Amino acid sequence: MPSSFLETKTPPKYSFTDDYSEGAHPQLLEALVRTNSTQQVSYGNDEYSSEARRLIQRKLSATEDEVAIHFVPSGTSANLICIASCLRPYEAVLTVGSGHIVDKEAGAIEATGHKMIIVPGSRGKMTAENLEKTVRQNQFFPHMAKPRLVYISNATELGTIYTKQELESISAVCKRWNLLLHMDGARIGVALSAPSNNLTPRDLVDLTDIFWIGGTKMGALLGEAIVVRSHLAEGFAFHLKQHGALLAKGRIIGAQFAELFRGDLFFELATNANKMAHMISDNFQTLGYRLSAKTETNQVFVILPTSLIRRLEERYSFYIWEHLDEQQAVVRIVTSWATNASEVADFNAWVRQWT
Amino acid sequence: MPSSFLETKTPPKYSFTDDYSEGAHPQLLEALVRTNSTQQVSYGNDEYSSEARRLIQRKLSATEDEVAIHFVPSGTSANLICIASCLRPYEAVLTVGSGHIVDKEAGAIEATGHKMIIVPGSRGKMTAENLEKTVRQNQFFPHMAKPRLVYISNATELGTIYTKQELESISAVCKRWNLLLHMDGARIGVALSAPSNNLTPRDLVDLTDIFWIGGTKMGALLGEAIVVRSHLAEGFAFHLKQHGALLAKGRIIGAQFAELFRGDLFFELATNANKMAHMISDNFQTLGYRLSAKTETNQVFVILPTSLIRRLEERYSFYIWEHLDEQQAVVRIVTSWATNASEVADFNAWVRQWT
Amino acid sequence: MPSSFLETKTPPKYSFTDDYSEGAHPQLLEALVRTNSTQQVSYGNDEYSSEARRLIQRKLSATEDEVAIHFVPSGTSANLICIASCLRPYEAVLTVGSGHIVDKEAGAIEATGHKMIIVPGSRGKMTAENLEKTVRQNQFFPHMAKPRLVYISNATELGTIYTKQELESISAVCKRWNLLLHMDGARIGVALSAPSNNLTPRDLVDLTDIFWIGGTKMGALLGEAIVVRSHLAEGFAFHLKQHGALLAKGRIIGAQFAELFRGDLFFELATNANKMAHMISDNFQTLGYRLSAKTETNQVFVILPTSLIRRLEERYSFYIWEHLDEQQAVVRIVTSWATNASEVADFNAWVRQWT
Amino acid sequence: MPSSFLETKTPPKYSFTDDYSEGAHPQLLEALVRTNSTQQVSYGNDEYSSEARRLIQRKLSATEDEVAIHFVPSGTSANLICIASCLRPYEAVLTVGSGHIVDKEAGAIEATGHKMIIVPGSRGKMTAENLEKTVRQNQFFPHMAKPRLVYISNATELGTIYTKQELESISAVCKRWNLLLHMDGARIGVALSAPSNNLTPRDLVDLTDIFWIGGTKMGALLGEAIVVRSHLAEGFAFHLKQHGALLAKGRIIGAQFAELFRGDLFFELATNANKMAHMISDNFQTLGYRLSAKTETNQVFVILPTSLIRRLEERYSFYIWEHLDEQQAVVRIVTSWATNASEVADFNAWVRQWT
Repeated sequence: MPSSFLETKTPPKYSFTDDYSEGAHPQLLEALVRTNSTQQVSYGNDEYSSEARRLIQRKLSATEDEVAIHFVPSGTSANLICIASCLRPYEAVLTVGSGHIVDKEAGAIEATGHKMIIVPGSRGKMTAENLEKTVRQNQFFPHMAKPRLVYISNATELGTIYTKQELESISAVCKRWNLLLHMDGARIGVALSAPSNNLTPRDLVDLTDIFWIGGTKMGALLGEAIVVRSHLAEGFAFHLKQHGALLAKGRIIGAQFAELFRGDLFFELATNANKMAHMISDNFQTLGYRLSAKTETNQVFVILPTSLIRRLEERYSFYIWEHLDEQQAVVRIVTSWATNASEVADFNAWVRQWT
Repeated sequence: MPSSFLETKTPPKYSFTDDYSEGAHPQLLEALVRTNSTQQVSYGNDEYSSEARRLIQRKLSATEDEVAIHFVPSGTSANLICIASCLRPYEAVLTVGSGHIVDKEAGAIEATGHKMIIVPGSRGKMTAENLEKTVRQNQFFPHMAKPRLVYISNATELGTIYTKQELESISAVCKRWNLLLHMDGARIGVALSAPSNNLTPRDLVDLTDIFWIGGTKMGALLGEAIVVRSHLAEGFAFHLKQHGALLAKGRIIGAQFAELFRGDLFFELATNANKMAHMISDNFQTLGYRLSAKTETNQVFVILPTSLIRRLEERYSFYIWEHLDEQQAVVRIVTSWATNASEVADFNAWVRQWT
Repeated sequence: MPSSFLETKTPPKYSFTDDYSEGAHPQLLEALVRTNSTQQVSYGNDEYSSEARRLIQRKLSATEDEVAIHFVPSGTSANLICIASCLRPYEAVLTVGSGHIVDKEAGAIEATGHKMIIVPGSRGKMTAENLEKTVRQNQFFPHMAKPRLVYISNATELGTIYTKQELESISAVCKRWNLLLHMDGARIGVALSAPSNNLTPRDLVDLTDIFWIGGTKMGALLGEAIVVRSHLAEGFAFHLKQHGALLAKGRIIGAQFAELFRGDLFFELATNANKMAHMISDNFQTLGYRLSAKTETNQVFVILPTSLIRRLEERYSFYIWEHLDEQQAVVRIVTSWATNASEVADFNAWVRQWT
Repeated sequence: MPSSFLETKTPPKYSFTDDYSEGAHPQLLEALVRTNSTQQVSYGNDEYSSEARRLIQRKLSATEDEVAIHFVPSGTSANLICIASCLRPYEAVLTVGSGHIVDKEAGAIEATGHKMIIVPGSRGKMTAENLEKTVRQNQFFPHMAKPRLVYISNATELGTIYTKQELESISAVCKRWNLLLHMDGARIGVALSAPSNNLTPRDLVDLTDIFWIGGTKMGALLGEAIVVRSHLAEGFAFHLKQHGALLAKGRIIGAQFAELFRGDLFFELATNANKMAHMISDNFQTLGYRLSAKTETNQVFVILPTSLIRRLEERYSFYIWEHLDEQQAVVRIVTSWATNASEVADFNAWVRQWT
């Protein structure tokens, strides 16, 4: 796990560090240029945001009565707003320990006043069994914060995804215990586009109470689209405004999401990211390296010898995820909508050369 | 004062409603296109943000040891982060009643736990005398929250600006009472470019502890630059991250601010906004209408008969700021970097026609 | 208004400073001694607290299905818990400027995240008209925090009380605007026992959503009883626990409230406090001094010449509430359940002597 | 672990459930009666609180320049105030998973905005090694909340205590990483009075930054004494007031602590609690039952067959701490200052009878 971002310098090498190293997909930039000179009503009431809302609702096969859509600038703001909007002061969030909100958002959830209760995870995913067990263990009224909202991410922070059956099981536990289900969709694009995925966009509406669709990691300059089921939607814009997430020029997120969802661009970009990851993953496996987790989306976790890692670092940026011992470490390679096949081919060749 | 934004539809008319109805100045968009395809380190550590920081520091005649610069997406996030970063839990903010944080940010400051104490204002401005008096009245330890940070905006919400002498007086009270001084600079561009201004950018560094430079209202798609004096800068990025204001692709704010501050674009755009407002203001006065406040920056507050207002509404959008009686109301006309002289000429002619 | 408590030394003189200078009424102490050695279930589930709940419900002519009763150690904890328990993050409190929560509780309400909106008051009281007007002015969605809960105190901080008609009018505005009504009852005893009172205990249940009955200022060592209407009662004990207000030995508040409400002790003590205040007030008026507010409960606000104030200070402690000019000031004299007629007679004689 | 308190009825049997089932030690009640009728300055500025502060400082061999003392009504208020008073918004608390603040205080710490990071514990205690390792793993700036304050309890929630060497090691890690050390002293009395203890009261001053002395669990009606080192003491009373923990009649805690610390009563009561626990513990061991943890203070954790547990429940109240399997469970027996030898003898005989 990396020790610090701020010390890091601009990468002199090709980066597989994350899926937000580039700017925006050119088509989105063009949309910004094209729509730039019109005057629009502010704070998300512009025509581009309205169009984007309709397009997303259509993609979800959901009506505007079923789901409200709100745009926010960042994933952390999406998570903290979704969670804080749902909970009373004494209610707690249930999450696996690898959840992004646990140790990658500077305590943003706790800063809104809410406790997190850790559910033992499995390859980044929550299981219905562990959820049920943890909920049972946290019922000592009024001494324990009340379990109320379940946080999951899809794809997870380890690149894994939920099957429909898994999500249904979790949703069933939630209903049984009167828990809300929130899905962090920073990487929902690659999740729904994964070869092994069997969830439809509509399933997200049916099985969760609130979720968000990540634009930042799928070709937008910035922006995430929060999808709120109607029973939680009242007064939602207040939360955005109160947390500084309601942009005066909301058009800039609206115009990009309209572009991503007018056709299939969002999923095409996600498919590319997945494909590039699998090319890298396949190459590693062909050469005999062991994955620490099956590659399901755009993140490859592979166990490499230190000597090879040193060679890779000459030309590429990436995270060493975990030092296993003196000889080997888990390395994380992330591809994105912008990764192209020739870069991957070069990378794979470089791996082969030093194997 | 308007009753609701969300009901409003896309304006069918030319809008003088605010200074964020348009997209970005074309030069900023071009910078985004130009820099789009490079890979950059995330979370504000990209080369464009670094350049923008250096350029802003140069414009402020300040070194990086004196001031740290952080970029955030919105004015509300700038205010809440600046204020919350400085205060202990029991410390309160002093502000005039017309301050943006009082009733235009959905309780964002209180949501970080801090009380606001209202200081009687004068035409949108705080006075040293009223500040001193209010501080004296709030010393009943430990029953009253402790006055600790003074919030002012320049230009104010009423378009007025602080003279150097006024700011020095306020700063002196702050030093005497161990108060921090924070300036909301959503419209610092038009303030420093106003004909009656005698403050230099460096004065802001010398006389305040923390302030921010508004990009959203001065031609950027989004983004404000927080300028923190070194004694308050430790750990500042934590606050950004915790409030969801640290963009993964920080480059998009950095690239725009670099463009605004590489030459004089920022102040040229501000000068245009002010000039357009004065053209409108002069026309009103020539025609015999009374201003409810002298036009110092890009906001015109003028008292108009209801009959004329009805005519203006046929072609223009703007806020009716205050209903004085059945016959007349205060109207707010806002110009921006994007307002051009021919639109203003048309508007002035329309006013003349119906006078 | 006093400048500081902590500097103050133990009073060498008889104190009319406040109504919490003495310990407990002897009967309450005896109850603590009598019940001391039994073993009780902790955290408010002891038999004395249960009895006290039943006795209070009986005095309110309310069933346990209508109102839940919770005991907390202090008035500030009562206010912050009542208010925070009801509100979503973006919802604000409406209060007159003299409200105790405004500047006597160290920002406790804002520390729970909620804004206060000031309604112009009249002699410490809220009026239905001003409330309505202020609510109307705070509807600019989503920029203004949403008005949601009305805070009033009875008796007020100025010793005045609400008539039934006044409370009904406020309650009607609340219902019309979907506002909750919260009553701070730190001095509800003297209010309901005042000669001019026409409210019954049951009226409080019918006309408010939540209120509390002050024990600290009515002869208890500590403790306030929160009365929550059933629609707000779910999970209420969580709030107490989370704010450190759920005492392990809840019995010590329960036993005292049982004593206060088993017979009429609570109201007898209040009646004494009121009577002593009126004796003082009448004497001042007889001697020609002007009250700055009619004495309705146990607080006397009288305008006195500085020369007399100096004489009074030789033998008595009290607050100088407001300096009017060099010659005169408003003085606050507070009586309590413990004030006795001979002390008052001495005081009145001393006033006469130096008049 | 128990499932709920509120369902529980008043215990019909002798209770070993906790150390706060009784009222106050008679000597403390007598002090309340003796001091009841004097008039005192409010909010902790009374003469009894002042005396108690001096007596505690003397017992700690510390001057008033070194430590400030503040009284609060409950352990949860002590913990949340101590922690919230020290931290900036992005700073986190380090604690072992069995820490009282983790899951026995309804999320009180998170409600003040602060994250908790769990350090693997050993028999309820933190180790310097695990602390160091956890701190190292939480340095990913600015994405991870910053580790800043270490919470430990002594005695721990499992009845274990820290040796001087252990506390020195933890303190050394704290100094190396610029961490504050906070000790929850709800049961500091039994810890310092334990046969195996080698810490002096002064050691607590030297090795921690802030700690509190529990009165509620050592014979007081209520009240804990927070001991703050001078570098953290500025403005501390504000925190008390803001959280509703500054009692108007502060005298009632002051008078009790004066009584506990005028002579050796506090430690005598603690010694009794420990002695009674050891009598119970020894009896279990003599009869061949295995302790799940060595008895160091007033809590006995013993593994008992279900058949014996059923018999004990006929006459005694206590917690079943953990169900091991169908045949046996860990039972927690807690003694207190009020437990007497004859009750223990009866209990031990009852255990013997059914063994």
